[in-house]
Amino acid sequence: MRKEHDFLGTMNVPDDVYYGVQTMRAVKNFHITGERLDPDFIKALATVKKAAALANMETGRLNAIVGKALTRAADEIIDGQWLDQFPVDPIQGGAGTSINMNMNEVLCNRALEILGKPKGRYDIISPNNHANMAQSTNDVFPTGIKVCLAAKGKALASTLRTLEFWLDEKADEFRNVLKMGRTHLQDAVPITLGQEMAAYASAVRRARRRIETSLDDVHVVNMGGTAVGTGLNAEPEYSKLAAAKLSELTGEMFVTARNMVDATNNTDVFADVSGSMKSAALVLIKMANDIRLMASGPRCGLHELNVPPRQPGSSIMPGKVNPVIAEVLDQTCYQVIGNDMAITLGVENGQFELNVMEPVMAFNLFHSMDYLTNAVQTFVDYLLKDLQANTDGCRHWVDRSVGVITALLPHIGYEEAAMLAKEAYSTGRPVRDIILAHGTLTKEQLDVILSPQEMTKPGIAGETFLHRQDSRKLASN
Amino acid sequence: MRKEHDFLGTMNVPDDVYYGVQTMRAVKNFHITGERLDPDFIKALATVKKAAALANMETGRLNAIVGKALTRAADEIIDGQWLDQFPVDPIQGGAGTSINMNMNEVLCNRALEILGKPKGRYDIISPNNHANMAQSTNDVFPTGIKVCLAAKGKALASTLRTLEFWLDEKADEFRNVLKMGRTHLQDAVPITLGQEMAAYASAVRRARRRIETSLDDVHVVNMGGTAVGTGLNAEPEYSKLAAAKLSELTGEMFVTARNMVDATNNTDVFADVSGSMKSAALVLIKMANDIRLMASGPRCGLHELNVPPRQPGSSIMPGKVNPVIAEVLDQTCYQVIGNDMAITLGVENGQFELNVMEPVMAFNLFHSMDYLTNAVQTFVDYLLKDLQANTDGCRHWVDRSVGVITALLPHIGYEEAAMLAKEAYSTGRPVRDIILAHGTLTKEQLDVILSPQEMTKPGIAGETFLHRQDSRKLASN
Amino acid sequence: MRKEHDFLGTMNVPDDVYYGVQTMRAVKNFHITGERLDPDFIKALATVKKAAALANMETGRLNAIVGKALTRAADEIIDGQWLDQFPVDPIQGGAGTSINMNMNEVLCNRALEILGKPKGRYDIISPNNHANMAQSTNDVFPTGIKVCLAAKGKALASTLRTLEFWLDEKADEFRNVLKMGRTHLQDAVPITLGQEMAAYASAVRRARRRIETSLDDVHVVNMGGTAVGTGLNAEPEYSKLAAAKLSELTGEMFVTARNMVDATNNTDVFADVSGSMKSAALVLIKMANDIRLMASGPRCGLHELNVPPRQPGSSIMPGKVNPVIAEVLDQTCYQVIGNDMAITLGVENGQFELNVMEPVMAFNLFHSMDYLTNAVQTFVDYLLKDLQANTDGCRHWVDRSVGVITALLPHIGYEEAAMLAKEAYSTGRPVRDIILAHGTLTKEQLDVILSPQEMTKPGIAGETFLHRQDSRKLASN
Amino acid sequence: MRKEHDFLGTMNVPDDVYYGVQTMRAVKNFHITGERLDPDFIKALATVKKAAALANMETGRLNAIVGKALTRAADEIIDGQWLDQFPVDPIQGGAGTSINMNMNEVLCNRALEILGKPKGRYDIISPNNHANMAQSTNDVFPTGIKVCLAAKGKALASTLRTLEFWLDEKADEFRNVLKMGRTHLQDAVPITLGQEMAAYASAVRRARRRIETSLDDVHVVNMGGTAVGTGLNAEPEYSKLAAAKLSELTGEMFVTARNMVDATNNTDVFADVSGSMKSAALVLIKMANDIRLMASGPRCGLHELNVPPRQPGSSIMPGKVNPVIAEVLDQTCYQVIGNDMAITLGVENGQFELNVMEPVMAFNLFHSMDYLTNAVQTFVDYLLKDLQANTDGCRHWVDRSVGVITALLPHIGYEEAAMLAKEAYSTGRPVRDIILAHGTLTKEQLDVILSPQEMTKPGIAGETFLHRQDSRKLASN
Repeated sequence: MRKEHDFLGTMNVPDDVYYGVQTMRAVKNFHITGERLDPDFIKALATVKKAAALANMETGRLNAIVGKALTRAADEIIDGQWLDQFPVDPIQGGAGTSINMNMNEVLCNRALEILGKPKGRYDIISPNNHANMAQSTNDVFPTGIKVCLAAKGKALASTLRTLEFWLDEKADEFRNVLKMGRTHLQDAVPITLGQEMAAYASAVRRARRRIETSLDDVHVVNMGGTAVGTGLNAEPEYSKLAAAKLSELTGEMFVTARNMVDATNNTDVFADVSGSMKSAALVLIKMANDIRLMASGPRCGLHELNVPPRQPGSSIMPGKVNPVIAEVLDQTCYQVIGNDMAITLGVENGQFELNVMEPVMAFNLFHSMDYLTNAVQTFVDYLLKDLQANTDGCRHWVDRSVGVITALLPHIGYEEAAMLAKEAYSTGRPVRDIILAHGTLTKEQLDVILSPQEMTKPGIAGETFLHRQDSRKLASN
Repeated sequence: MRKEHDFLGTMNVPDDVYYGVQTMRAVKNFHITGERLDPDFIKALATVKKAAALANMETGRLNAIVGKALTRAADEIIDGQWLDQFPVDPIQGGAGTSINMNMNEVLCNRALEILGKPKGRYDIISPNNHANMAQSTNDVFPTGIKVCLAAKGKALASTLRTLEFWLDEKADEFRNVLKMGRTHLQDAVPITLGQEMAAYASAVRRARRRIETSLDDVHVVNMGGTAVGTGLNAEPEYSKLAAAKLSELTGEMFVTARNMVDATNNTDVFADVSGSMKSAALVLIKMANDIRLMASGPRCGLHELNVPPRQPGSSIMPGKVNPVIAEVLDQTCYQVIGNDMAITLGVENGQFELNVMEPVMAFNLFHSMDYLTNAVQTFVDYLLKDLQANTDGCRHWVDRSVGVITALLPHIGYEEAAMLAKEAYSTGRPVRDIILAHGTLTKEQLDVILSPQEMTKPGIAGETFLHRQDSRKLASN
Repeated sequence: MRKEHDFLGTMNVPDDVYYGVQTMRAVKNFHITGERLDPDFIKALATVKKAAALANMETGRLNAIVGKALTRAADEIIDGQWLDQFPVDPIQGGAGTSINMNMNEVLCNRALEILGKPKGRYDIISPNNHANMAQSTNDVFPTGIKVCLAAKGKALASTLRTLEFWLDEKADEFRNVLKMGRTHLQDAVPITLGQEMAAYASAVRRARRRIETSLDDVHVVNMGGTAVGTGLNAEPEYSKLAAAKLSELTGEMFVTARNMVDATNNTDVFADVSGSMKSAALVLIKMANDIRLMASGPRCGLHELNVPPRQPGSSIMPGKVNPVIAEVLDQTCYQVIGNDMAITLGVENGQFELNVMEPVMAFNLFHSMDYLTNAVQTFVDYLLKDLQANTDGCRHWVDRSVGVITALLPHIGYEEAAMLAKEAYSTGRPVRDIILAHGTLTKEQLDVILSPQEMTKPGIAGETFLHRQDSRKLASN
Repeated sequence: MRKEHDFLGTMNVPDDVYYGVQTMRAVKNFHITGERLDPDFIKALATVKKAAALANMETGRLNAIVGKALTRAADEIIDGQWLDQFPVDPIQGGAGTSINMNMNEVLCNRALEILGKPKGRYDIISPNNHANMAQSTNDVFPTGIKVCLAAKGKALASTLRTLEFWLDEKADEFRNVLKMGRTHLQDAVPITLGQEMAAYASAVRRARRRIETSLDDVHVVNMGGTAVGTGLNAEPEYSKLAAAKLSELTGEMFVTARNMVDATNNTDVFADVSGSMKSAALVLIKMANDIRLMASGPRCGLHELNVPPRQPGSSIMPGKVNPVIAEVLDQTCYQVIGNDMAITLGVENGQFELNVMEPVMAFNLFHSMDYLTNAVQTFVDYLLKDLQANTDGCRHWVDRSVGVITALLPHIGYEEAAMLAKEAYSTGRPVRDIILAHGTLTKEQLDVILSPQEMTKPGIAGETFLHRQDSRKLASN
């Protein structure tokens, strides 16, 4: 045990841990979720700390020996060491001060050790004066969140791109599978299964671009703003240096906010990133639900699609197979939308120079990104790649449909077409027979008007292929 | 034009209006929704004012002549007169003060007129001293909301009871319609359409009871708490008198809150009422969506139900009929859930002795209650009463299903049953044939095990009838 | 009375109305909100109809005489005539078919009248064949929503720009008002009121840009996609012509979607537009709440700001003035977030080739845009322009604060500074006195380190002025 | 390694694990959250399984030797053994089938071991035929959730009761602390700090009762409903026996649902439980925010309360102490409201005989209950117990306030009082002086009218003490 103190008093700290008194207080204060901090976030924050130390060395304020020890300690964390030294609960009061101080303490004590000094010798390297030099929780904590989001966001975007690729593949594979289009869950007019897949791809592409756009703003950081954005205690040149170092270390372009006070007290960027995931979730839910409906059956439903069987579907009903992968995607999307609500409330509750609710935002943002990435990848790997069309089943519905009568509209008008439709529904006779019996149109005319090609305009669907090429290129990057 | 003043200055008020200077300021200040105040709420607030006046006369503080003039003016409003004299926007700042003062001004000026005095002679009857005697916006405004909710809530509960009645009727009507049960949208085991209808009835009944329970709390009012719940400027006996008068006037039992400070500064009761409507909305959405799915087709869907055609379904597709009534119920429920979010945020943002966000709560509560009442009544009248089972269609699915094999489980075990199911799916042969071919069970055994009666346990479904009797009784009250 | 029929039967229609049988059915079917359709939307839809008619004339499919009569009828609606001819409830089933048919009927009957024919002579001009030519509700209805959003969105963006302008003005006006910065609602370090105003301006600017970005996507329309996006019954060239005509008529660039099936069955663009308003609402709430806190008092609160008195604040407390304008902005923002939830649920519930929940989305989108525009304009006009700093009050807090001790950190280290702070808190003595008494720093050093200029870094705050210039230019466009 | 098979094929299972082939498939299929199942839930589900086995033994269907082995295995799990044998991800497709089968496999293999048989000998004891006898995931899984909620709910209610107790204690302790009441964050009229604490207690009490009421419904279970609620494969007497056994094992009264189909396909009870926590969260947020505001300062804020210092508040600002415990309560409440949204979406998406989204509901319900329990206990232990009034600070505000003038209303009327208030605000002179100077009232009159006792009606506040006695009694139960 070693003794450490802060201005509230002295505590015993186990000698084998790198964290110190403030971490211990935080662990005592916050027992909410029982979860651990996200490892990606710990690494991101260590990267921010390293960037700050490098900047401070460059401005000359940080002694090179101390600076090198601190950056080496940061490197170790970035490499995945000492992750067990971050015991504070992710949902915590204090706007991340406990996380920042946890990091400062671990960096200091490890740096002291590197220099051959005992842990706790904060007179040599201090968590507040050295590890936190020219910094405040109020700039490094949100910056750490942003660095982490940038990394996780890339993974999410990449997974969505994989989804687009496979949807485009399926659009190609199913381009000749004629099926009944449905609006209001009621029979409408024919479409191809390929067109439906291409539409999902197109929507996912838009959703992914929205996420990427929202992530642009996380590259604007407030390093050097310190406590309230006025830059108190930070050298003017430090701010830009810190962003430059961060860019170097991450390979992403981070820039200093034009208005540092704004960047310190507003968190709408987190609402925006979450909102873009919410929009994506809505697109994914629609796709998953369509697939669940099309796979319904196998005997007593639409049965237009076969989803690959992944596990027995029931503990009591033998032979049952359920679209479990689409279901888990749905549920993940509900979670993302729920998380968005928690984030919304956090953002809504900022006051004055800081929004102290950042920890709950980070907690939910990281979850949403990870869960969504995992669920989309799962969907691709365990459902989409092996998705099969029931071509005969699809055609069966089209052949017995009345909706095709819509194609006659330009030829015979709505009134007469409605009359024929009514007759078809009440008699159950095929539409073609009725039309021919009435002498409305000739067989030759019908062959053209009711041809699948005419009704599903492959010309438009053909755009798919262009998209697919794009997508292939993107996926191979 | 007459001149009126308040402590901010003097304004010209058109001579033909009953409202005064404070209303005019509010109209100028708040132009947000362009909507009018809910007439039910204006009447409810007038009732509260009348109760206060009667109580004040009984404590002896309010002069009988003035008191009678004020109560007569209130009666006129309750009867639907002067509704055009309430021009303030429902979403407003000031926690309802503008609405309260609008009411006070109309009451005063009308009372002055009744007494043969010119409008604006507030030295004789004053909006603040007489119409608002022993009151504050902070007690009369939430009380007015509660009186209005109690009334609207009864209408909503009554409409839900009608829905229960008709669902029970349909449960009875469809009790022999055997259909395929589905879980995960995949074929499960048989059930009757009547059982499904009875399940909706049961869920709606529970939802309605939840609404009624939540409405209990709106009968607890803070009349006499005045500004912050401490009762400043109100006689001790006034508080109970006011609640008693309110009970007399409305025929509902309103009681004074045990803790008046709590009752003045907390608005969780509004979140709770809205929450109970949200729960109901979820039950209704499930029912509406099931019906939309069962009515899907008519040629290319499940087609187990025929919903009554209410309008042509498409501007381009002749003969198309859509389940528009179920769709509008769905959308209304989404609105109710959205309104709940606005209410949630309002409740979340109270501070100290008052939650000033009450106007936005009232706005959404009234909308949710009216919309939901209307949508449920519409659903009953235009869909449910004329809903028809496609008995043959339902049976068709059951006959081709494999899921019935589940019934063999207690007889042959899961393993063997799964084997038979697999064979059925891959060969397409009827389940019975396969079982008989394997000699697993005899024809006689199968007749019993696979009988619809056995599989759908009419004994349990039979409970429906008991409920139906209950419901009939309730509906006739 | 005239008789009209559709395929469900015949109805009597009053002879003096322009709408017809399908509108009458819809009015009967949907009684939910009791509200009217948004006039801006009626005009937007008429514009879409005119564009379609012009395109149909250009492809040669629409007879010029009929076409001219229809476009003239559309022009009249665009000019605000016949708005009383649209009685259908905004929340409705049928995915807008009732609105589209209401429009088709009014256009036809008015066109017939223009041509000197009696209303109802649909054999001459037909709602389905002519007014709806090459169209489906599924393309014209969402396109109408988008045209309306583009117009309303411009108004909203313009109002936000006005807000930015006035916030920048206030940033300038208050640039020398030194005040206490607060984090966690606890004293932090000094900042200027001007910096706070500039931060609001910066955040609003970002929020407005997000709205503008989200509005880009509403310029992508699916005209020519008809029923399910395959373009059935529409000439290939019609699609691009319709978008071109729409662009001409509105002065905004509308383009045809690359993937028309996607554009027809996905509504995520509406979630995205609503989401951008939600983000803006969060920024506005923060600003409004800060102002409410800073205006708290006047005797028993922070009292750093004077908001202009707009109305007596209480029916019982004389002389009370409340920040009612900030409160109404808050509430409007809660409504916008609530509306976003309703929209989210609508978008979540699309199936296959159409999301039939579009009416509830439109209802909420239009409300959110109007309400937000109104509330922001109200905030500017009735609060912000006349907002005054209580300069002495602000300075009073700074002078008694201990937080300024933070500025000593680079000079004496965290440990010693914390010790001095503790002494200041426990003794109540001014910080400067304690430091001088300890001999930690000299008076001359303190004068520099604790100077307001040093602590609030006007260099960074100075960026404000650049923004202000930008904003002035933007506001004058 | 042992080989296991299901109807999808054969897999190798490590020989040392108790779970089997279906668990392994699920682990492969669902990698979403990376979290583990809630241990309380695993135990609850084991209890359900034990109840089912006991009931099956009593009906005579389950062999006593197998039954005893299974119940002993269940007992071990209930005692906390084998918790590491449940590796499936909590968010999963299949409506909990994977969790149910995971449990069935562990029970079977452990039972086999108990009987001296090798794992995997499902011909002796089968996961589907024995462990799952007369059951379906669709009845045991929701029942397991309910049993878990009943237990966690009791813990939550108990913690809320502790909060009520301490709030009542503080109401007592602070009953003579006169402070300024505030509405609209603006000075209103005096109140006591004790009254405010009592109001929180009263609101929390109501919130807790709501939670308890909502939990009543989780005691209604659908054991014996099996796949779709029709009870297929379950003996009629089994259903009631299973509920009875469950009641015995848990010491709580669980009853069989009257309508088993409803109980199987509706999940509104989960929305209701979550909704009651949402309502409680709103009450807690209000309390936490009030405390944050009252503790604001210490030099530049209201400073009416001293919250106990728990950790240094800043990495950069020496001596800063923040109300971190109130902040973490706020954030936890946001999380609860966010979780409610995820649950809402889950409940919204049921179809036909089952809502397959139950896993995401359970995941969020368990989190909300645990987090809320933890955060409330944290609030009591680390903030409330040591909360201190700044009595002088409170009095300071009252003494300089103008709002007390309200008390003169019944004596001099609103008009004259407003005039005096205006003079007080503009001159800054004390209210008493002005009144006396005007000769409006005598000193003696003022002493009575403006006495704290008169203005804060101890009579009403006195109710507090009654509540406190109640609360003490309740807390001691």
